[in-house]
Amino acid sequence: MKILVSNDDGIDSPGISALVKSLKEIADVTVVAPQNEQSAVGHAITMKIPLRVTPYYKNGDFFGYAVDGTPADCVKMGIRNIMKEPPDLVFSGINNGSNTAINIIYSGTVSAAREAAIMEVPAAAISVTNHATKNFNYAAKLAKMLALKMKNNKLTLGTMLNVNVPDVAEEELAGIILTKQGKSKWDDIYEQRQDPYGRDYYWLTGKMFEVDTNTDIDQVAIQKKYVSITPIHFDLTDYDTFDKMKSWHIENLMNEKEA
Amino acid sequence: MKILVSNDDGIDSPGISALVKSLKEIADVTVVAPQNEQSAVGHAITMKIPLRVTPYYKNGDFFGYAVDGTPADCVKMGIRNIMKEPPDLVFSGINNGSNTAINIIYSGTVSAAREAAIMEVPAAAISVTNHATKNFNYAAKLAKMLALKMKNNKLTLGTMLNVNVPDVAEEELAGIILTKQGKSKWDDIYEQRQDPYGRDYYWLTGKMFEVDTNTDIDQVAIQKKYVSITPIHFDLTDYDTFDKMKSWHIENLMNEKEA
Repeated sequence: MKILVSNDDGIDSPGISALVKSLKEIADVTVVAPQNEQSAVGHAITMKIPLRVTPYYKNGDFFGYAVDGTPADCVKMGIRNIMKEPPDLVFSGINNGSNTAINIIYSGTVSAAREAAIMEVPAAAISVTNHATKNFNYAAKLAKMLALKMKNNKLTLGTMLNVNVPDVAEEELAGIILTKQGKSKWDDIYEQRQDPYGRDYYWLTGKMFEVDTNTDIDQVAIQKKYVSITPIHFDLTDYDTFDKMKSWHIENLMNEKEA
Repeated sequence: MKILVSNDDGIDSPGISALVKSLKEIADVTVVAPQNEQSAVGHAITMKIPLRVTPYYKNGDFFGYAVDGTPADCVKMGIRNIMKEPPDLVFSGINNGSNTAINIIYSGTVSAAREAAIMEVPAAAISVTNHATKNFNYAAKLAKMLALKMKNNKLTLGTMLNVNVPDVAEEELAGIILTKQGKSKWDDIYEQRQDPYGRDYYWLTGKMFEVDTNTDIDQVAIQKKYVSITPIHFDLTDYDTFDKMKSWHIENLMNEKEA
């Protein structure tokens, strides 16, 4: 089995080393990861400037490739140029901090796995629910078990798995549960400050307000100490609204008198 | 009616001026747009560095605010900090180049409108299907008619409209049609070059391969000279796969013997 590994915290992060070490026990692993941290870059790709690829020896951990781009760039570059044939799986992580609910939209970790899904390679993004955690052991072990499971069960083409592991000791985990993306969002605040020259600047901050209560929702599952696994696709069409909008008769908009 | 306008081509682009001019005929318009071009940034938001906001007089066109961030940053900043009360609508564009099929995932134009939808403000992204076009007249007129239509019809909270206008004369348009996101994708190629110092670098290029044929698919509609309007939401859960994956019994993964 051939697995491509990427992330958004950058090739130097401890999470990717833990993931690579574990997956190497069951697969040939190729690492192509961002040279620098790329959190919250969403599904950005680099088109206006060229990319560079640097072979990278990470002390004692692995040999890989650092790309001066985004997580999605790394997956494209890994599959199209670096690997001789497409991998069987792509894993992204292990991320520091959860990627649930609305954060899935902003996440670089998820976008790396989603880029793989777009390229029709089954993929998973894996995160531990604490920005400061150094506890990647269980998540790394789970990644290995999940990779074997994914090898034996065909995931729908174009779908990826978004995995979130609570940052607790393995024996405290409540179990593993299949979930849906939650509706919790950020109550954003831009904190206004002044630089030493009297000019204003703004830091994005805020807190998440929780709106879900069912355990089969990603954000609720992790709070109840479940490992959450959500199938994610890239068809953004709102089919319910598509049906409802038939009553808008937009086909007539062209002939309507201007306001 | 209060409308917030943003884009991804930057506050200096001609498309945003055409949009603002048209919407001003029916609404109070506030412009908050990226200082620099932000194409293909996806749904990136700026968290690791602070943002700056610069009042901006665009010669003869409008007064607005330039933000040194992404399209999603601009919408957040506009709604949270710059406008005294939330707008009734957010419009993003007019973009140079179509945003259909897989490009919706990468698009900064769409992400600006999607950020508004996340913030529960009805929104639309509007694009003309030619990167080099200077023909924004019909798209600008349509934006105004659509804004009035959106005012009178309640869009589902969390849904936005992705509008693509063929780059043809108004009388050549086939009509306006409600569509779904297509499945066409890019056959990516990284073109390898060498810099004057003998080091390799890579340009992303490639072409789209078409897989859809029905006129109710965005990419097909625009080729048949229809204006395409697709309702887009941000629930990425793949519900079909969610049901299918029950047979995986991932809840047992925890107890399975390691490989």
